[in-house]
Amino acid sequence: MEKSGRARSAVDVLVVGAGVIGLSVAWRCRQRGLSVTVVDPAPGSGASRTAAGMLAPVTELHYGEQPLLELNLASAARYPAFAGELEDVTGRSIGYRRTGTVVAAWDAADLAALRDLAGFAGTLGHPVQALTGRELRSLVPGIAPGLPGGLLAPDDHQVDNRRLHAALLAAVTGAEARLVDAPVARIDVGGGRARGVITADGTSLPAGTVVLAAGAHSGRVAGLPDADRPRVHPVRGQTLRLRMSADTMPPLIVRGTVKGSPVYLVPRATSLESGPPTGELVIGASSEEAGFDCTPRAGAVYELLRDAQSLLPAVSEAELVEVSTGLRPGSPDNAPLIGRSRTEGLVIATGHYRNGVLLTPITGDGVAALLADGALPPELLAFSPERFAPQEVR
Amino acid sequence: MEKSGRARSAVDVLVVGAGVIGLSVAWRCRQRGLSVTVVDPAPGSGASRTAAGMLAPVTELHYGEQPLLELNLASAARYPAFAGELEDVTGRSIGYRRTGTVVAAWDAADLAALRDLAGFAGTLGHPVQALTGRELRSLVPGIAPGLPGGLLAPDDHQVDNRRLHAALLAAVTGAEARLVDAPVARIDVGGGRARGVITADGTSLPAGTVVLAAGAHSGRVAGLPDADRPRVHPVRGQTLRLRMSADTMPPLIVRGTVKGSPVYLVPRATSLESGPPTGELVIGASSEEAGFDCTPRAGAVYELLRDAQSLLPAVSEAELVEVSTGLRPGSPDNAPLIGRSRTEGLVIATGHYRNGVLLTPITGDGVAALLADGALPPELLAFSPERFAPQEVR
Repeated sequence: MEKSGRARSAVDVLVVGAGVIGLSVAWRCRQRGLSVTVVDPAPGSGASRTAAGMLAPVTELHYGEQPLLELNLASAARYPAFAGELEDVTGRSIGYRRTGTVVAAWDAADLAALRDLAGFAGTLGHPVQALTGRELRSLVPGIAPGLPGGLLAPDDHQVDNRRLHAALLAAVTGAEARLVDAPVARIDVGGGRARGVITADGTSLPAGTVVLAAGAHSGRVAGLPDADRPRVHPVRGQTLRLRMSADTMPPLIVRGTVKGSPVYLVPRATSLESGPPTGELVIGASSEEAGFDCTPRAGAVYELLRDAQSLLPAVSEAELVEVSTGLRPGSPDNAPLIGRSRTEGLVIATGHYRNGVLLTPITGDGVAALLADGALPPELLAFSPERFAPQEVR
Repeated sequence: MEKSGRARSAVDVLVVGAGVIGLSVAWRCRQRGLSVTVVDPAPGSGASRTAAGMLAPVTELHYGEQPLLELNLASAARYPAFAGELEDVTGRSIGYRRTGTVVAAWDAADLAALRDLAGFAGTLGHPVQALTGRELRSLVPGIAPGLPGGLLAPDDHQVDNRRLHAALLAAVTGAEARLVDAPVARIDVGGGRARGVITADGTSLPAGTVVLAAGAHSGRVAGLPDADRPRVHPVRGQTLRLRMSADTMPPLIVRGTVKGSPVYLVPRATSLESGPPTGELVIGASSEEAGFDCTPRAGAVYELLRDAQSLLPAVSEAELVEVSTGLRPGSPDNAPLIGRSRTEGLVIATGHYRNGVLLTPITGDGVAALLADGALPPELLAFSPERFAPQEVR
């Protein structure tokens, strides 16, 4: 990583934001032969860090969000190849685990709703297995007693989002993209087109195309024409990281809705470094509209622990290691904004809301295709930022 | 602070442990003209750090612990002079606040029990004021609605335990006591008397008297004759530190017992450093017998937040800044062990359990008197470690 300090000759692509989205765009662009610079004062310090890494198109599906569901499924389908390639290129594991996800029903009404979801997922070609209470306890021996059942979504997987970020960073720098760890003062727009960015110390970084991938902050980068300001807003989320003995770790992702409050528990690989084996359990996630305030709220920690313990009592004996707070880039329809803006030379890749880690492969592929081939692939056409642009009145 | 590294000439007093107890002993001994060395690999990293700093002889009193109550009251009575002297000598504030403590009753039965306590405290000359629900809400505007009342103990104060420790450390080093930041391998006992300690790197630190003030670890220091091994055991406690806006901070200490589970909330001074004023709220404390394991337990964090929110709803909006875990030095009768052991040259000052910060002045004064004048002051005679020594059989 290098400090900015002087004007540079123009690169093909300048990516604003070194989270998993910006880095996947940068990596795929370099693979297409484009020269790339990525600017971020603190790569991977945002939602990429706070995320839990669930790849959960099925158990995250909501009726009525059919186009987003299809995008999620398409990106999930790319994960095996994406993970394999990234691990090959970097020599780093990204913790991609295909052990599936259990959704535990809290009560009979919840169980009925889950059965409906299972039927819907089945019609989409993603069979989901209904579980009796006994089957649930057999899959997750530590689950709270008395839960009436649930379902198993074998296609909902996970990746370790922090390892994913580290591997993408290694891939990008290994591919000789330039990383500039400076805050962006503004996007340099002139003559109706984006020409690069100006960093906080006044350095000009000229580029053929600017890709705005600054997550929840994308809407407040200076210099943007108002019509092209992405309509994203921050949705604060908190996750907890706990250390627990390996014998009490759930063998796969467990999620549920405890008295109306959703919670998930994502088990990471166990460590044998010293002493008895322990694992990391990620618990998420709160969801709060609180502007750009990233201070952890004690009430959210309380609620996550309460609900996680309700599903898996052994959580109370685990060690609380970390409370992490991040800002999801929410959009008006909960779907991402990917594609050209009305300003020439400005491409948007943000608004991934709850699905940033899941949508990392398809976003990187799609933006690279747009910049190398001149057009977005068909699966991304429904997610153009243009859908929120004000209508021109003449 | 200096590293140990070679044998030294004997000092009058060698204190094992640089928590608030060990440092107050060291400070008072230096003031009596004794030469002093204090050995601790990590001064102030134990219970002195995790404590909340309540000076609460009245609201901590339990029937049947009359001698300990009297000791607590006697040490509380010394706090104004002790704090004043320490602040004068060091130029540091220790955050001594005499704003009193409110005990909120959770329900009618709890209120009745509190009224009994108030009557008992009154007979001891510590008038406690009964509060109606309205009076309670008037004293603590943010208290949960619907609580039936409580009581006000105006004589239960607080000190900022971390500032207290820092000031004692400054006083001790300022008084030219020597501080050695090394682990103690063993106490050097030979010919029936303690002659000093040997540190982990083999350095011998000879002394006329060894004062064992290693808190919960005091019972497992090597080299002690079994009959003189203090009967202390670790009682794990967790405290939380939150940052909250000054306008939601309680103006004085609030404690209560929520559905049988005790909790206290200790407000610290507000800070005006940047942005709107905020304060620190210390929430405590869990109490668990878990050996020397100091990993924070998620269940304890959950319970503290649950109970604190129940008393003061604004806690849920506060920022969780720190989870701290420490080991109280518990003793068989919950009272400290202060005084000579049967081994010549070995003095014990440990077992302060829940009252270490409160008992800091009287312990320092008493041990210094023992070493300078040859006898413990009368108020400490009931707390000799001899009370737990096995009877000699001949």
